[in-house]
Amino acid sequence: MAVYTEVTDEEAARFVAGYDLGRLLSLKGIAEGVENSNYLMVTERGPFILTLYEKRVNEADLPFFIAVMQHLAGRGIACPQPVAARDGAALGRLAGRPAAVISFLEGLWPRRVTPEHCQRLGAGLAAMHLAGADFAMARANDLSVAGWRPLLDRSRARAHEVRADLAEMLETELAHLESAWPAGLPTGLVHADLFPDNVFFKGTELSGFIDFYFSCTDFLAYDLAVCLNAWCFEPDGQFNVTKARGLLRSYTKVRPVSADELAALPLLARGAALRFLLTRLYDWLHHPPGAFVQPKDPLEYWAKLRFHQQVTGVGAYGLDP
Amino acid sequence: MAVYTEVTDEEAARFVAGYDLGRLLSLKGIAEGVENSNYLMVTERGPFILTLYEKRVNEADLPFFIAVMQHLAGRGIACPQPVAARDGAALGRLAGRPAAVISFLEGLWPRRVTPEHCQRLGAGLAAMHLAGADFAMARANDLSVAGWRPLLDRSRARAHEVRADLAEMLETELAHLESAWPAGLPTGLVHADLFPDNVFFKGTELSGFIDFYFSCTDFLAYDLAVCLNAWCFEPDGQFNVTKARGLLRSYTKVRPVSADELAALPLLARGAALRFLLTRLYDWLHHPPGAFVQPKDPLEYWAKLRFHQQVTGVGAYGLDP
Repeated sequence: MAVYTEVTDEEAARFVAGYDLGRLLSLKGIAEGVENSNYLMVTERGPFILTLYEKRVNEADLPFFIAVMQHLAGRGIACPQPVAARDGAALGRLAGRPAAVISFLEGLWPRRVTPEHCQRLGAGLAAMHLAGADFAMARANDLSVAGWRPLLDRSRARAHEVRADLAEMLETELAHLESAWPAGLPTGLVHADLFPDNVFFKGTELSGFIDFYFSCTDFLAYDLAVCLNAWCFEPDGQFNVTKARGLLRSYTKVRPVSADELAALPLLARGAALRFLLTRLYDWLHHPPGAFVQPKDPLEYWAKLRFHQQVTGVGAYGLDP
Repeated sequence: MAVYTEVTDEEAARFVAGYDLGRLLSLKGIAEGVENSNYLMVTERGPFILTLYEKRVNEADLPFFIAVMQHLAGRGIACPQPVAARDGAALGRLAGRPAAVISFLEGLWPRRVTPEHCQRLGAGLAAMHLAGADFAMARANDLSVAGWRPLLDRSRARAHEVRADLAEMLETELAHLESAWPAGLPTGLVHADLFPDNVFFKGTELSGFIDFYFSCTDFLAYDLAVCLNAWCFEPDGQFNVTKARGLLRSYTKVRPVSADELAALPLLARGAALRFLLTRLYDWLHHPPGAFVQPKDPLEYWAKLRFHQQVTGVGAYGLDP
């Protein structure tokens, strides 16, 4: 439930006057997303999203994210488009924050994921990876293996508040991942945060991707690992192999995946689980009392991590080993 | 920040299929309002508000609120309109809650109130009162003087947690209001919750009223008292007599106010302050930890109440005594 920066009507009207969008007709805070402040803004030209980038987003990265959306849309991938102001700039300032007007993407994110959603996701993700192949910019994934130890350091002393043996377990897992993390896998532009609330559908058709504010340059298969965790576990914690099979098979039909990538998938899935476990753990331990955002349960990702620790090959994900 | 009831995409699509609105294209929770869950819903017919009525709203009152919006719109007062489903009903059920599709009202509520806003508000409120004169239904104001003692009873034992002498002060004030509360003032349909976030403007023009879920039958001047408190104090607690004068003068130009109403205004303003103090106090003491809604400071209304206690006539509100 995210509106961190309040925008006054006068500030918003002044800001919108810098665009060729007609008059501002409505501005409502959206109770979704956790990193930035998002408003549904209606002008005489229709609905748009007004995003104010909050402190967790590094301002220096914003031109990369804007370019990602522009590049992908230019290659036919449905995603929100930054709207340029009259002066040509896609980024402005509003209420003391960097801000952008983004096109309104139709569709609903699936509150209850079905195997069919996972199939569409696989094909759509592969198409996004192919479309990113000639993207000229690069951005390191600061939440990949090299970033996990600093993250753990910031939560280690209080990790026992969440679970008695959590710090030791995370230390062991991290040491393993640091020594075994693969190298040389096919690399390119990845979304890196492809949870169901970032993928829109119209009926059963995938209508687009949103929220590229973790996008970066990393192993393409890392996106698959994030999706295995975010889309293929049931609310009760059970892994749903039908969903995983649908995701992976439809992906590989669009972008063939190498044997090395497949072999690395269980390890990448452990890494992806650790990444969200660590950021959730930090948020859980450090969220200010009275904050609007309900922190997410880090132990959900502890369970997912433990699942992948026992996986010995992609057979567990529904593919022929 | 209010989305209490989560609606799945399938439930929402099924619900919308009962209306003549085309396909559901988008559904986003709105981070405004504190009583109900509100979604900004875009269908092939454009944007609408989808409201799910939460437990604090008495279901038996919903037909009254719906009729209020229909009546006022029929008299030219801009307010959201309930959209009838194919079966003619303005009220349905969704995710276990009563639910309605409401027309989208353009405009922004003023985050920073100016004297000009107060002027427009006065004229608009008076027009709303005149438009309600032939409204056939009635609903007692359960948050007027008879409702305050039960409300105080539910918070008295813990009122000292907010301020040491609060319970005694509230008891004294309540006893005074119970004995001195006026009778026989002009009565009719009132909004009863006319805070700035319930009044939309386009530029400086008032574009409409929303959120009629406290509307009831009460003294018309009680709405003025609510507005004096909600619109005419500065963020630092100072009463702004210019705003009050603008509100009252523009109101009385459209609906002449009797000498009795003017004389009662300081007392009504004390009552209106006590009403919001008591509901805020209850919410402050009883809001569940981790709830999305930040409770509002009851002591803001303590200060307003103390201001009106010292008022001896409408001269303090900028009118000629």
